[in-house]
Amino acid sequence: MQSSTMQAQRAGRIVSPAAVASRKVARAVPASGRAPIVKVQAAATLDKVAAPAATASSGGAGTRVMIIGGDGYCGWATALHLSARGYEVCIVDNLCRRQFDLTLGLDTLTPIATIHDRVRKWGEVSGKHISLQIGDICDWEFLSQAFTTFQPDAVVHFGEQRSAPYSMIDRQKAVFTQTNNVVGTLNVLFAIKELKPDCHLVKLGTMGEYGTPNIDIEEGYLTVTHNGRTDTLPYPKQGNSFYHLSKIHDSTNMLFTCKAWKVAATDLNQGVVYGVRTEETMADPMLLNRYDYDGIFGTALNRFVVQAAVGHPLTVYGKGGQTRGFLDIRDTVRCIQLAIDNPAPRGEMRVYNQFTEQFSVNQLAEIVSREGKKLGLDVVVQNVPNPRVELEEHYYNAKCTKLVELGLQPHLLADSMIDSLLEFAVQYKDRVRMELIKPAVDWRKTGVKVNTMGAAVAQ
Amino acid sequence: MQSSTMQAQRAGRIVSPAAVASRKVARAVPASGRAPIVKVQAAATLDKVAAPAATASSGGAGTRVMIIGGDGYCGWATALHLSARGYEVCIVDNLCRRQFDLTLGLDTLTPIATIHDRVRKWGEVSGKHISLQIGDICDWEFLSQAFTTFQPDAVVHFGEQRSAPYSMIDRQKAVFTQTNNVVGTLNVLFAIKELKPDCHLVKLGTMGEYGTPNIDIEEGYLTVTHNGRTDTLPYPKQGNSFYHLSKIHDSTNMLFTCKAWKVAATDLNQGVVYGVRTEETMADPMLLNRYDYDGIFGTALNRFVVQAAVGHPLTVYGKGGQTRGFLDIRDTVRCIQLAIDNPAPRGEMRVYNQFTEQFSVNQLAEIVSREGKKLGLDVVVQNVPNPRVELEEHYYNAKCTKLVELGLQPHLLADSMIDSLLEFAVQYKDRVRMELIKPAVDWRKTGVKVNTMGAAVAQ
Repeated sequence: MQSSTMQAQRAGRIVSPAAVASRKVARAVPASGRAPIVKVQAAATLDKVAAPAATASSGGAGTRVMIIGGDGYCGWATALHLSARGYEVCIVDNLCRRQFDLTLGLDTLTPIATIHDRVRKWGEVSGKHISLQIGDICDWEFLSQAFTTFQPDAVVHFGEQRSAPYSMIDRQKAVFTQTNNVVGTLNVLFAIKELKPDCHLVKLGTMGEYGTPNIDIEEGYLTVTHNGRTDTLPYPKQGNSFYHLSKIHDSTNMLFTCKAWKVAATDLNQGVVYGVRTEETMADPMLLNRYDYDGIFGTALNRFVVQAAVGHPLTVYGKGGQTRGFLDIRDTVRCIQLAIDNPAPRGEMRVYNQFTEQFSVNQLAEIVSREGKKLGLDVVVQNVPNPRVELEEHYYNAKCTKLVELGLQPHLLADSMIDSLLEFAVQYKDRVRMELIKPAVDWRKTGVKVNTMGAAVAQ
Repeated sequence: MQSSTMQAQRAGRIVSPAAVASRKVARAVPASGRAPIVKVQAAATLDKVAAPAATASSGGAGTRVMIIGGDGYCGWATALHLSARGYEVCIVDNLCRRQFDLTLGLDTLTPIATIHDRVRKWGEVSGKHISLQIGDICDWEFLSQAFTTFQPDAVVHFGEQRSAPYSMIDRQKAVFTQTNNVVGTLNVLFAIKELKPDCHLVKLGTMGEYGTPNIDIEEGYLTVTHNGRTDTLPYPKQGNSFYHLSKIHDSTNMLFTCKAWKVAATDLNQGVVYGVRTEETMADPMLLNRYDYDGIFGTALNRFVVQAAVGHPLTVYGKGGQTRGFLDIRDTVRCIQLAIDNPAPRGEMRVYNQFTEQFSVNQLAEIVSREGKKLGLDVVVQNVPNPRVELEEHYYNAKCTKLVELGLQPHLLADSMIDSLLEFAVQYKDRVRMELIKPAVDWRKTGVKVNTMGAAVAQ
């Protein structure tokens, strides 16, 4: 058991039996020996395709799902995925993610429509209605009214400030990140307790809550034998940014309310999400999802891919041995659906680790280099000083079996590089603003002076 | 090792060698066979006594100590203790604890002077100056100015909303407790990083952060062997109120800043404090400390003592097997001094468990009954429905050796019952408001309606 886990660790990926089965089915394009010329199909010129009907296996027809943060990267893809499958969807969002871009001078690689246009277009394309509540869940008056009006069976809570670098820009943004995330989640917990006690909370956590311990990372809890006695306790948490810490606070609060108030909750500790293509967001240009590549909101892999497309060196932070869990956004939406379809019992905080493969930053850079070269791109890797404070060489072996047991069939990175990543970057490369893709926030220099302008563009 | 620990657990107390030595010295009044009549010496009529000079062992002469929350129960006693021993003390307080009493209709058993009068009187009695900054540490402009002006060598941070029942009154107070405590501590961490990087943070945590695990409670960290690998990780935390959870959040945030910014911090996980008498607060009636006995701010033992004094049954919540760590306020002030005199190195978050003995609620009630009867009080114990959600019978064995190793000589409860507890309750019993001493906040009923009036007085 231990040695096979270790081998998977050395191989840089955990491959479950289900994942292998999925890979066999999904590999439409051979991994090697392929011609380097790939037809890039432009999302913006795709013919409208009918959205998929609810599948027989969805089990969710009619389930009322409130998606907080439904205008964001994961939230929008999830909203459409569920709506397409017959769930009654209500998006709740205060649009602060768009405001962050405005404030910092950032922009998504892909041109995205307003949330109002998105929802309207989705209605035309699919015949499905998504209701929309624009407001801030930290505002109790707003949230309680949204809850009372929609009466959700499940709440999917993506509605948090989700960037580690953003939370490290300055004191104001650190404090904002923690208050916004903690108070928002507290309000959701109070709303469930008081207004809809049988509502299932599906909360997005992060794998970053665990840090990089020198032991295997379990799914939420750890059984410890100490001085001859044994207990199963919350897995010890060590966050590496004010953002990651805020998610630890949420988990700690949720566990208490599950015990004290019999809330039913699933905490999904998600890895780093990559990709932009999901079945529904590709159905019309106006449904296109966002794609962040900047030094603040761009996650490692998405950023590397854009760097490759525009001929910028891939910026590996420090030694590049930092290892994390990753997943395709097409698996994110499926994981959320699985969590909703298999609700936690009341009084339980169930924790799943939501990722499919683990890679070091160096491994990611290697994969992007290799695949980029197949497209004729000249990819260079550059080690830059690490702006973060983190271990750059460490043990990492995180478990991710529970969602596979519920039926997740992972998309694997090797298969996604072409059909969901590099083609987008190449297609939209004229929109790339080169000055935004360097690391811009230094963990050691987080200060008390408001640093909006300096943060976005490395000085 | 294990079996002796277990015996101590069964005996309801951990007795360290130092504690035994202290007991031998301190026991001026025999534990049994004493006449039931005790001369109650009124603090309000005490002759002024000179405050003690700085002791040779203080080591702190001239050390600049900012005490945040220095107008509160532990903070005030600590401020005087340190000032008397030659530390330069600055009290920072927004006086919110007094505002809570005003808002909820509560009052301390003992009549206390305003902070301005307290500090002025202390100057007269001791010849020592304590500087005073009235403001809110959540207000960065205020805190940064206080820091820049005072230039502390150490910050003792008591400045948090510290009542579990208060945090469970309603949604607003839960949110207030978490934002106030988390943001205040974040601001202190930023102030240290930016304005005085070598300042040592002495932060008050709580033993309640650990909850009641079925294994021994260590001091802050737990060494875990799992699947053949070993790491020392933050001890898993499980809080049982929004207040306790806020202290977990603080500890999690502090650990990160110690790593990322090389902050030097000592996290003192304090047990339940009892008593009111310290050498300095008894030096003049105007220096008298507060004593809370109500259902919201009164801690178990202080509340029992007042109940005994006024003939109210001791209200044991549920089965009464709930076991916690306790300490005399005279040990609180000494622990803080020891932490300051032995600062953590930069980059380390050192954690001490700050209590001296552990008791179950039933054991406390027994002790108060027994001692009360010696004073001629008719003490009845009443088990009432537990307003909290907590285990009422559980394993509990918490370590508390590190402060003893630094030199703490504990005062033991059996010795304090007469000289610091029951006499105060009897002396001030005419000030007791009977309607305030029942449990008033039910964990299962924490609601979203603002409940200020209903909270203070059980309906």
